[in-house]
Amino acid sequence: MEKIQGGVTAAKGFLAAATAAGIKYKDRTDMAIIYSEKPCRAAGTFTTNVVKAAPVLWDRRITEEVGQAQVVVVNSGIANACTGEEGLRYCQETSAEVEKTIGVPANQVLVASTGVIGMQLPIDRIRTGVQTMAPMLNGSLEAGNAAAKAIMTTDTHEKEVAVQFEVDGKTVTLGGMCKGSGMIHPNMCTMLAFLTTDLAISEELLFEALRADIPDTYNMISVDGDTSTNDTVLLLANGMAGNAEITEKNADYEEFCKALRFVNTELAKMMAGDGEGATALFEVKVIHARTKKDAKILSKSVVCSSLTKAMIFGHDANFGRILCALGYSGAQFDPEQVELHFESAAGKLLIFKDGVAVDYSEEEATRILSEPAVTVIADMKMGDAEATAWGCDLSYDYIKINADYRS
Amino acid sequence: MEKIQGGVTAAKGFLAAATAAGIKYKDRTDMAIIYSEKPCRAAGTFTTNVVKAAPVLWDRRITEEVGQAQVVVVNSGIANACTGEEGLRYCQETSAEVEKTIGVPANQVLVASTGVIGMQLPIDRIRTGVQTMAPMLNGSLEAGNAAAKAIMTTDTHEKEVAVQFEVDGKTVTLGGMCKGSGMIHPNMCTMLAFLTTDLAISEELLFEALRADIPDTYNMISVDGDTSTNDTVLLLANGMAGNAEITEKNADYEEFCKALRFVNTELAKMMAGDGEGATALFEVKVIHARTKKDAKILSKSVVCSSLTKAMIFGHDANFGRILCALGYSGAQFDPEQVELHFESAAGKLLIFKDGVAVDYSEEEATRILSEPAVTVIADMKMGDAEATAWGCDLSYDYIKINADYRS
Repeated sequence: MEKIQGGVTAAKGFLAAATAAGIKYKDRTDMAIIYSEKPCRAAGTFTTNVVKAAPVLWDRRITEEVGQAQVVVVNSGIANACTGEEGLRYCQETSAEVEKTIGVPANQVLVASTGVIGMQLPIDRIRTGVQTMAPMLNGSLEAGNAAAKAIMTTDTHEKEVAVQFEVDGKTVTLGGMCKGSGMIHPNMCTMLAFLTTDLAISEELLFEALRADIPDTYNMISVDGDTSTNDTVLLLANGMAGNAEITEKNADYEEFCKALRFVNTELAKMMAGDGEGATALFEVKVIHARTKKDAKILSKSVVCSSLTKAMIFGHDANFGRILCALGYSGAQFDPEQVELHFESAAGKLLIFKDGVAVDYSEEEATRILSEPAVTVIADMKMGDAEATAWGCDLSYDYIKINADYRS
Repeated sequence: MEKIQGGVTAAKGFLAAATAAGIKYKDRTDMAIIYSEKPCRAAGTFTTNVVKAAPVLWDRRITEEVGQAQVVVVNSGIANACTGEEGLRYCQETSAEVEKTIGVPANQVLVASTGVIGMQLPIDRIRTGVQTMAPMLNGSLEAGNAAAKAIMTTDTHEKEVAVQFEVDGKTVTLGGMCKGSGMIHPNMCTMLAFLTTDLAISEELLFEALRADIPDTYNMISVDGDTSTNDTVLLLANGMAGNAEITEKNADYEEFCKALRFVNTELAKMMAGDGEGATALFEVKVIHARTKKDAKILSKSVVCSSLTKAMIFGHDANFGRILCALGYSGAQFDPEQVELHFESAAGKLLIFKDGVAVDYSEEEATRILSEPAVTVIADMKMGDAEATAWGCDLSYDYIKINADYRS
């Protein structure tokens, strides 16, 4: 497997376009479209929030009942959540517009929205946006990058990644893009991610590979503990790499899973590190936990703790907050056994051992915590399980962004 | 029942004192002592955090095994948590100092600490503090108020309340003080609260009354979702009101429970409203829920949501975040049925109904949300259960306070 340049247009046969449709933002692009030259197998995973946005309901039906798709239309600015019947009708009307303009059947058009909850989409502008983008569709890396930019909300930069690997003597490409960066919390990933591949694989295994990957990637990130109404990961496979279709869990399937894990982990970390107001990616590794479940619960508890996140922002080695967050996680352990390290590009430092703080240098701790990516390692000394969670620090800008998000 | 002036010294026979012991803060009091002229029945409830501070372990043993106490010694500045054997020894040494100086047996001395985790107490200063306070012990309201001030950490004001009620023809007084204001999250209350009463009541019923009250009062508040290692509520009853001891759940017991509910609710709301950096008390009332459990889960999910809290800080009626937080709470409901109101001293406004936003005035919503106490009412239209949770908004100052708490 090799990392390459690009995102959703990296794989064969995938085109993209973006436009400034004037949904809510001014002076920037806010609509994107992904198009595959051939119909794709389509898999999706969606928010577990009881309140599901209209596009989530629409896409779930298509991925689960139709299982095939050729177009994804995305807008940023308005989430089309808590919008009742009217909101659902707009999904249908967006897809109908794609059918009319591009010729793909409406029931093979996926839609996604992100932005303010509770406002209705300006459907005329969405329609015009589709019409504008149709003739612009393009397989260049630039087109993919333009799409990645258009789906951003409070993100500070676009998020793309792509890899190539071999299957059946053919080069297969898997690429993706995503957007964060608020309302980010596990179950599921609280974000939009779009993955495209030219791999030939059965619908069943495509779904299974995606579902198996989410719990260790997107579901291990948190920006603010708020699980969005719109979380969506879509994975499209058009088979254009020309490999013999993967229909069983063989070495080729494993190779695809490895690529998927890499792409999703990279995208997840990009989202966490670009959380609203973030100045640092905050990684929490729990090792030697009793069970995998415990390791996940512990690492997520620390990564979600407001006090710990504020401590990372302040580059302050207030490690008691980490022990406190481990302690209220719900997992059982012996506080006297826990060992804590801080680690970053500036070094690694033991902080806590045998129930008390070791005699560490505050200066060195601050230096380690001042890097743009900071890791806390908690060794529970109870077993062999481990898990990693990703988040970000909690800064003044998080408040600034969210105190008046709509204006 | 009547609300009266005062706090921990309001009830007969309770004295208090405070001093500047120089534990960590400079130029302010940081130690307090509560003393009862007669030995008290003592009940306590403590943090559910796996990591329990040394004073929590000490007090749990006394309240559960001894069941009697006469003195409480409290310090602010250092939490005596994650301090191993040495930390436990300091609880013992503090109590021994009280025995030596005041003559109360060490196993009837409760201790409590709040502040930085992971640092050891300067035990010599604690000892000197006890010696200084012993001759100052005083039953005046001023002495109670001085104690309430000394236990503050990032609190902006002291928190006291007291009531009087009749039992068996005698006037009974119940008073209390508490401190917040960070690491505040249910299970239990993530704070220190000290309640004193001159009621005569059996140890068993004293415990039961306290335990039954916590789930609807302290456990319904949240400042930041972090459950502290030090949470403690202590309730002392010295029987000096002269009533016939309450030994069964009769009308007198109910009267006491009512007073306890009032005092604990008032203290809980004071803590929530004085959460770190808070500019407003944020109340979430869930009505017509399917079950009490659902009502609690739903109200706490909203009161804990960073995005909702930031919205309250911004006086911005971004109601979608409330629906979102209800949706990821874990409780099931039909989003199409939910009705949302904002309410404060400035009025009450319907925002959301039948699955969509109603045509409300943004100006009026902002006016309502600009008050120092703001309520969200979520009508689930599913049953008869209801619950109220309290928190505060999320402001720049929360970050400021917590990015470098130790310095």
